[in-house]
Amino acid sequence: MTDISPVLSAVDDNINSSLERLFELVRVKSISTDPAYKAECGKAADWLVRDLTSLGFNASIRDTPGHPMVVAHHDGVTPDAPHVLFYGHYDVQPVDPIALWDNDPFDPAIEDIGEGRQVITGRGTSDDKGQLMTFVEACRAYKQVHGSLPLRITILFEGEEESGSPSLKPFLDANAGELKADYALVCDTSMWDRETPAIAAALRGLVGEEIVITAADRDLHSGLFGGAAANPIHILTHILAGLHDETGSVTLPGFYDGVEETPANIKASWDNLGRTAESFLGEVGLSIPAGEKGRSVLELTWARPTAEVNGIIGGYTGEGFKTVIAAKASAKVSFRLVGEQDPAAIRESFRSYVRSKIPADCTVDFHEHGGSPAIQLSYDSPALTKAKNALSDEWAKPAVVIGMGGSIPIVGDFQKMLGMDSLMIGFGLTDDRIHSPNEKYDLQSFHKGIRSWVRILAALGGK
Amino acid sequence: MTDISPVLSAVDDNINSSLERLFELVRVKSISTDPAYKAECGKAADWLVRDLTSLGFNASIRDTPGHPMVVAHHDGVTPDAPHVLFYGHYDVQPVDPIALWDNDPFDPAIEDIGEGRQVITGRGTSDDKGQLMTFVEACRAYKQVHGSLPLRITILFEGEEESGSPSLKPFLDANAGELKADYALVCDTSMWDRETPAIAAALRGLVGEEIVITAADRDLHSGLFGGAAANPIHILTHILAGLHDETGSVTLPGFYDGVEETPANIKASWDNLGRTAESFLGEVGLSIPAGEKGRSVLELTWARPTAEVNGIIGGYTGEGFKTVIAAKASAKVSFRLVGEQDPAAIRESFRSYVRSKIPADCTVDFHEHGGSPAIQLSYDSPALTKAKNALSDEWAKPAVVIGMGGSIPIVGDFQKMLGMDSLMIGFGLTDDRIHSPNEKYDLQSFHKGIRSWVRILAALGGK
Repeated sequence: MTDISPVLSAVDDNINSSLERLFELVRVKSISTDPAYKAECGKAADWLVRDLTSLGFNASIRDTPGHPMVVAHHDGVTPDAPHVLFYGHYDVQPVDPIALWDNDPFDPAIEDIGEGRQVITGRGTSDDKGQLMTFVEACRAYKQVHGSLPLRITILFEGEEESGSPSLKPFLDANAGELKADYALVCDTSMWDRETPAIAAALRGLVGEEIVITAADRDLHSGLFGGAAANPIHILTHILAGLHDETGSVTLPGFYDGVEETPANIKASWDNLGRTAESFLGEVGLSIPAGEKGRSVLELTWARPTAEVNGIIGGYTGEGFKTVIAAKASAKVSFRLVGEQDPAAIRESFRSYVRSKIPADCTVDFHEHGGSPAIQLSYDSPALTKAKNALSDEWAKPAVVIGMGGSIPIVGDFQKMLGMDSLMIGFGLTDDRIHSPNEKYDLQSFHKGIRSWVRILAALGGK
Repeated sequence: MTDISPVLSAVDDNINSSLERLFELVRVKSISTDPAYKAECGKAADWLVRDLTSLGFNASIRDTPGHPMVVAHHDGVTPDAPHVLFYGHYDVQPVDPIALWDNDPFDPAIEDIGEGRQVITGRGTSDDKGQLMTFVEACRAYKQVHGSLPLRITILFEGEEESGSPSLKPFLDANAGELKADYALVCDTSMWDRETPAIAAALRGLVGEEIVITAADRDLHSGLFGGAAANPIHILTHILAGLHDETGSVTLPGFYDGVEETPANIKASWDNLGRTAESFLGEVGLSIPAGEKGRSVLELTWARPTAEVNGIIGGYTGEGFKTVIAAKASAKVSFRLVGEQDPAAIRESFRSYVRSKIPADCTVDFHEHGGSPAIQLSYDSPALTKAKNALSDEWAKPAVVIGMGGSIPIVGDFQKMLGMDSLMIGFGLTDDRIHSPNEKYDLQSFHKGIRSWVRILAALGGK
């Protein structure tokens, strides 16, 4: 393996110029969802192409119907070096309400927030410009010291992540041959805490369904019809209440097909993180775990499937009271999936169950709102183990392999469309206020993030 | 008993002048809910005082904080004649959307609608000016022929019935001694059909409750918290689904206390009306009775209590999908009461049940939305029997004693505040389009309605 000490020293020596480059990028107002900032998005992509070109990457702007992609290639130190695809996004969230920002969101600065912490303020410092630049700066230091990179690297920077990624799938499809690598590195996630780096190995999938139940052909007066006419809210509440049994398990036939128990050593490592029900739920004013009994909150949110009602409406919902029996009632229901659960099978099981509860004189309409399987990486693949050890060398505490309760669509797309797994490694913190006023990125996240990537690149490039 | 033949003849002979008086009253735009028509409400009250005075009533305007009441007294033919209070209302609903009216709503006319039916068109012709004038015209014919009335009569005409009757209770309270009679006659209801008059003897009561369940102190991301955090929609659907058992009965402890079975002969008379589930529910696109099994739709809506969810809302209810776990979810629930069910006890039973289902880290708030007991008159009181026979003499088919699914607040107020029962007798038809454009009142309803009151007055006055 390459000697990384001089590379790490270069990172430390150059941190100020690294910061200045990040500031330049943050100053570009690349808000992807607002057409008024279209030119700024193009400017951010141009800046990245120029910067990567200066590092020796073969980088180019790739137009899409929306904002451009940046694609860059660099050979590895040997022809048989592993090939990785690094992903990040240069677009940012809108900044309103602007009045809630303490500083100009597009004029980044270093601020001391006490407890020895310095942070970089500004929109996109954490999500995701600061994160993607940790990787770019690691490559820069590596090139500076060794004149080469230990891996063959393809970089993909997207400009529409904050606005639904409409161009991403067609782009992956059209450029699959160019983008396919041995695996992907995705830098858009957080650390466990300020001392503990994390690699996400499990992401829950999602099935979204909306059901609309129709009873009478008009709203009815509950005095005239109550007790005789079907009430769609009653039908709906029976259906939804029946989704869980008294142990909190989901009752749909076949729901747990493909759900495996988490390995004992992984569960033990999660228990060691000290995230109790009280600490986890206490932050949002709760204390008692709902859902399946007898499992920790981390297991419940990272490794167990759920059925959740995300919205419900029917009848009169304004001020006061109206004695109406509604014609319609509807609910939005989502299922978080784990392991090998099949989104299509779960959708069908839910629909069959719902249909079985609809009286013969009522009807139900289903509206599909997306479906994606869970991502479950091996908890002990060679690449993951190498990255984990590299991270553990850099930080105060050993890296932890975690799950994530939500989905990261890009990881599913890489798996489905390019047949490659992703290592999700990021240095954000939960107090970064991404998507909110006063977004920041810890200077430590940036600095040690760059150093982390140096270590990971070397480790992944090692035989 | 007085000979009523000449009185009925007088009704027939004078029908055109009776109609002209009704037209005069309908032309007054007494829309109580719209302050722009305040003077018109006063004008209608004045018109009624003048008309009743011309009949020999001691009639007067009685000011209230809102629109005035009209109170009028007339002695009976003998000092020991029964004393009745007649109630109607002179105010009307707004007329918008005015474009949907075929004729000027305040320029009444006679129109032929085929099948031998002539109708009086205009706002208030059925609700309630036409109805109250049937009683006034019956008194007029009686006075014209006999120079006296067979009963001691107090009349109360309200001007705020269509705008929530804010002045009514204080007025009843302040004038209880003056208004208290042996029983009340209320003319603001409908016939069973065009040939069958009806007397309502049972009105369901109502308890309205709103519950708001709070779980976390903010909306949560269902990916991050789903499976671990309490979802208030789940709690709510379990509560609401648990309100009914599989037979359609309400499960609240003590709910059926005070509920008696309807007498067999009354149930049989209802069955004879031929109102099947198919015909009753078919009008609104349904066919299968919901609620308690094994009971007819008339029994279910007239004589059985219910629990109905009138509105529910929680989480994301807009277009598309949002994977949120809501902080709050709420529902509006009403209970229709019959017999001697106690509104306060039912509210408390509901609240206890709800509280028992709330996890220790969640809360529930209750909002009371009114409560009134059922009205249950004896199905065979002497007054009711006399009125029923009188109606049966006038119309093609015998009168039927019915229930009503909804409440009529005035009847409860009379019972509670003045300690008197009401006979609800009206000649409206279900196609009168009250509260809607093109309101009408059948000429037959008006003409035979007057004749009906002549017969009822005589019967009630008879020993």
